Amino acid sequence: MLDFCLVGAGFIGPVHAANLAVHPGARLKWVIDLDRHAAEALAVKHGARDGSDLGEALADSALAAVIVCTPPRTHTPIIEAAARAGKAIFCEKPIDLDLARVEACAEVLAQTRVPFCVGFNRRFDPTHRALHDAIRSGEIGRPEMLILSSRDPEISPPDYVAAMPYGIFYDTMIHDFDMLRWLLQDEPVEIYARTACMLDAKENPHRDPDTAMVVLRMAKGALVHVNSSFRAVYGYDQRIEAFGEKGMLVSGNQMQTALERHDKDGVRRDPLLHFFIDRYAESYRRELDAFIQAIKTRTTPEIGLEDGRRALMIAEAGVRSAKSGTPVALQA
Amino acid sequence: MLDFCLVGAGFIGPVHAANLAVHPGARLKWVIDLDRHAAEALAVKHGARDGSDLGEALADSALAAVIVCTPPRTHTPIIEAAARAGKAIFCEKPIDLDLARVEACAEVLAQTRVPFCVGFNRRFDPTHRALHDAIRSGEIGRPEMLILSSRDPEISPPDYVAAMPYGIFYDTMIHDFDMLRWLLQDEPVEIYARTACMLDAKENPHRDPDTAMVVLRMAKGALVHVNSSFRAVYGYDQRIEAFGEKGMLVSGNQMQTALERHDKDGVRRDPLLHFFIDRYAESYRRELDAFIQAIKTRTTPEIGLEDGRRALMIAEAGVRSAKSGTPVALQA
Amino acid sequence: MLDFCLVGAGFIGPVHAANLAVHPGARLKWVIDLDRHAAEALAVKHGARDGSDLGEALADSALAAVIVCTPPRTHTPIIEAAARAGKAIFCEKPIDLDLARVEACAEVLAQTRVPFCVGFNRRFDPTHRALHDAIRSGEIGRPEMLILSSRDPEISPPDYVAAMPYGIFYDTMIHDFDMLRWLLQDEPVEIYARTACMLDAKENPHRDPDTAMVVLRMAKGALVHVNSSFRAVYGYDQRIEAFGEKGMLVSGNQMQTALERHDKDGVRRDPLLHFFIDRYAESYRRELDAFIQAIKTRTTPEIGLEDGRRALMIAEAGVRSAKSGTPVALQA
Amino acid sequence: MLDFCLVGAGFIGPVHAANLAVHPGARLKWVIDLDRHAAEALAVKHGARDGSDLGEALADSALAAVIVCTPPRTHTPIIEAAARAGKAIFCEKPIDLDLARVEACAEVLAQTRVPFCVGFNRRFDPTHRALHDAIRSGEIGRPEMLILSSRDPEISPPDYVAAMPYGIFYDTMIHDFDMLRWLLQDEPVEIYARTACMLDAKENPHRDPDTAMVVLRMAKGALVHVNSSFRAVYGYDQRIEAFGEKGMLVSGNQMQTALERHDKDGVRRDPLLHFFIDRYAESYRRELDAFIQAIKTRTTPEIGLEDGRRALMIAEAGVRSAKSGTPVALQA
Repeated sequence: MLDFCLVGAGFIGPVHAANLAVHPGARLKWVIDLDRHAAEALAVKHGARDGSDLGEALADSALAAVIVCTPPRTHTPIIEAAARAGKAIFCEKPIDLDLARVEACAEVLAQTRVPFCVGFNRRFDPTHRALHDAIRSGEIGRPEMLILSSRDPEISPPDYVAAMPYGIFYDTMIHDFDMLRWLLQDEPVEIYARTACMLDAKENPHRDPDTAMVVLRMAKGALVHVNSSFRAVYGYDQRIEAFGEKGMLVSGNQMQTALERHDKDGVRRDPLLHFFIDRYAESYRRELDAFIQAIKTRTTPEIGLEDGRRALMIAEAGVRSAKSGTPVALQA
Repeated sequence: MLDFCLVGAGFIGPVHAANLAVHPGARLKWVIDLDRHAAEALAVKHGARDGSDLGEALADSALAAVIVCTPPRTHTPIIEAAARAGKAIFCEKPIDLDLARVEACAEVLAQTRVPFCVGFNRRFDPTHRALHDAIRSGEIGRPEMLILSSRDPEISPPDYVAAMPYGIFYDTMIHDFDMLRWLLQDEPVEIYARTACMLDAKENPHRDPDTAMVVLRMAKGALVHVNSSFRAVYGYDQRIEAFGEKGMLVSGNQMQTALERHDKDGVRRDPLLHFFIDRYAESYRRELDAFIQAIKTRTTPEIGLEDGRRALMIAEAGVRSAKSGTPVALQA
Repeated sequence: MLDFCLVGAGFIGPVHAANLAVHPGARLKWVIDLDRHAAEALAVKHGARDGSDLGEALADSALAAVIVCTPPRTHTPIIEAAARAGKAIFCEKPIDLDLARVEACAEVLAQTRVPFCVGFNRRFDPTHRALHDAIRSGEIGRPEMLILSSRDPEISPPDYVAAMPYGIFYDTMIHDFDMLRWLLQDEPVEIYARTACMLDAKENPHRDPDTAMVVLRMAKGALVHVNSSFRAVYGYDQRIEAFGEKGMLVSGNQMQTALERHDKDGVRRDPLLHFFIDRYAESYRRELDAFIQAIKTRTTPEIGLEDGRRALMIAEAGVRSAKSGTPVALQA
Repeated sequence: MLDFCLVGAGFIGPVHAANLAVHPGARLKWVIDLDRHAAEALAVKHGARDGSDLGEALADSALAAVIVCTPPRTHTPIIEAAARAGKAIFCEKPIDLDLARVEACAEVLAQTRVPFCVGFNRRFDPTHRALHDAIRSGEIGRPEMLILSSRDPEISPPDYVAAMPYGIFYDTMIHDFDMLRWLLQDEPVEIYARTACMLDAKENPHRDPDTAMVVLRMAKGALVHVNSSFRAVYGYDQRIEAFGEKGMLVSGNQMQTALERHDKDGVRRDPLLHFFIDRYAESYRRELDAFIQAIKTRTTPEIGLEDGRRALMIAEAGVRSAKSGTPVALQA
């Protein structure tokens, strides 16, 4: 039984807590949050200890691992503290929005050599992963085009948007930038991006881009298109299409039910799953399980800090292209 | 170029005429109909001769074949006349509703040995045929269950219903009774049928069965279910499902378009094709082409009079079961 | 927090235990199993107490509810003991295979008036439930035909089959017999069943029926077809189709992934979910949640003992029809 | 009955001839081709006159209309001759590859005022048209993103490729450039294109681009992506996705059959239709019918020369962007 400490009881924290509760090889031992009540509520349900002082938990010599799901800008000090305490670390994405801080963090991890994993959960979605495996096994031969559609049902609240301008790159498409690297096992050499503000001033008061189209060229030659929107009123739209010399793979959407309603106006299906926590529920289970297996087998977790850094670098170049209106070169 | 005479210019006649017009190996030369105007209108469009006297056309020594698409009760005398004139014959289903007349007709055909084909058009639907071929090639191993759904969007007009009581067996499910023999290459040994009148007195004034469920046992052991209705408000619903030791084959429906509409209420597709002439447009083309090829290559057309007789026999037994409420045995 | 005792640590027990572990309003307190080791293993993971003596758990005055998931023939004494101890009871289906024992059990429940629920989990499948709700809300008007396909990927082991002859009725289609009552809010008045042994002697040494087709007539007039097999090699096939005067509802299957693979041979999807625990994972969560809510709100759980008795009665009549080859009347 | 002359008996010519043969309001009277044998063969089948001299046909005062389906570079002189003879003209796309020639042709048409239509057949595909109509009727509100996938199963023969470099823009995506104007009722103001040569030297000896990704910005703000390939081994892949403030519309592909094959490896569908003549068979019927209706009702055909000119202009700008690697501005 590996003992875990969860840092950050809000939002995605309870998801990880519930997954630990049913995992045969792990246990939630600590819940740390500046909001002591949030920590306590989650701890009580799972028979864990709660607190607001991370140091207390890190001093627990029985503690094996830490899950970091606080806001992005607090990630690197927590990672560094946990690394120095010798704990395995699972950190939500993005690691940070500042490349320099990510690189400083990389040094600490290099010194301490603790297991580290970034929570790019989409890699663990069973359908996306099956698509990945099919490419790897050569099913479509050389990949020639990759198309990622990555659309949220709504924009984040104004405060959140204000805190992270161009979040459509840094927060949303950063998943796609990770996916394209992972799926193609290749790095982009050029990115071109165009954005638009389609939401009205009430929904998007900061006029931050809420719609984007991106084209990338990869070092090995493949062309990639990513499109994103903060207004997919029909649900959380998450599709990947990989086209190659021997065929095409399509990772499709997931509906709320498998019901078909036929009447004289046609056939109706229920909407797509609306919220990412439902859509990626299985991914969250599997990414945590993979992290636990990596610790137990002393293997390197699949998604390292370098993956986090690369995705951030692509996002930054994309923002520069969107602002300048011209393609931006990237180092492979 | 094979010269054809079409007997019956109404309803399905123009479909066969148009298919002849674009067929590279055949030509419409005569259109015969008691309604001289109907014959003429169709003839003019296709540069054919029209008339109301079948004898005149049959006396044309260049005439190779006759397509019979008049009402069922007129079929057998036309078949017999055409057979005696040595013409190849394509006859719409059902051949007749009276088994004795069908058997008499069989004798004439046996004597004259002209090529003869019954228009069980569903056998030529590309999807149904692909299902058939997959069974034949052993894809699902031994067939164990077969399920046919055969639903019309509306009931026929009261006159038509009055002229053919239990038409849901004789006119609609007769297609399914042919299909199950063809798909399983086997004969039923027992049939059980239950019917209901679901339409109201205005739509179905004769209270003829408009809804039916049938279970058959085949000589080789497979179980078969057929269901039928005259009120599929969502379109012409035509599905076949074959289940066997190695898998399942499903021949699905055809929609009016391939458009998907996603909004907050879900995903909507356009309705099924509504009318059998649209749904089976390709089948009509292919059955005619197969008939022409059979004539040219002097091979026996695929669907003989015996097939028509067998399907009618099953329909009759089904009606007896529906009336008695008990299963009825059939000779394999 | 409601405290639960799980009776039966094998098979479906761990599923209920995991669902309790993440439920905000309940907790697993006891695990009872004659196999002390099985009880202990499950108890340790969830911080519960284990034992082999049900009496000890029932004596715990803080205990609110019991989940019974032992073999069917042991259900009624456990139910009766728990009822007399005043505990709420959730019991897996079938309650028992003997109608007389079920009726005796009903008396005890009537006296004690504890909340009681039978685990007909399919009612809680989100898609089946959406179909149910659509019928209830009048979407298809009067239901005219209902078709249930209920196919397992493989037959149970010979011992299991020997212990429950005609299990395809008592264990599998019993779900469908419950579903048709629930979906149509109606009772059958007649059942006709045909069965076959399609598996070979090695797979099905007892020659118990492994394939079945059933037709039922309902009191309000609808016709129902159920088909079942123990050899759906392509996965756990669970479909429902409801046809009515205004349209059709189809509850479709669930695939392992949403991946489509296009190559020159066509388009391939991954297989259906293979195992009922995966297919109905969400149903198990929801049925337990509904039971907990019923206890908390002091409302009657949705699926009572009478539902279990009715489904068993239909299964018995179906077996009689299969054996006799003629329809069997049922009292509505 | 409108009398038609077909100019060009090869390739697409027989498709138009067959559609005339079954059209109730039109008739094929002349077939003109430099290859006298090709003209004759087609004429005989349809009872038309054949010749190699267009002048002879144009001198026929009863002739109402001309269908031009010769190679692109011969279109403009034929159009001009037919226009001066006062005939209605239906011309296959592209009108020409040289903008100056198209503009000269426009002048002749402006003078003669004969009905003229360009054969952008995709506009008449029932699914694409339903998508168009849904946008027009406001179903998705303001369109925000449009994605067109336009992939051929194979590259044209080397001679054809040599005769039209960058044919992926001029011959294939020119359809998409027309569609995006028609669907959005808007003009592009900027185009960015990236191309690649993915086929090997044997298949693509001239190293002409066989793969392309394009992003366009429209005057009203929508973003558009087009991707294209000459190697969709899985069939003729033709999809359109329109995303707007109220939802998404998807025009999907068409399969060869509606058969599903379930076995232990999954579910298999037959491939997409492979050839554009099959895929767009209905479009060819409908575009001809629309042209005939326009002549009869003396209304302007839907797709004028200006549409042909605009699509060509976008293709040219796309080629310039692909060559320079930077976005190219377009006048709206």
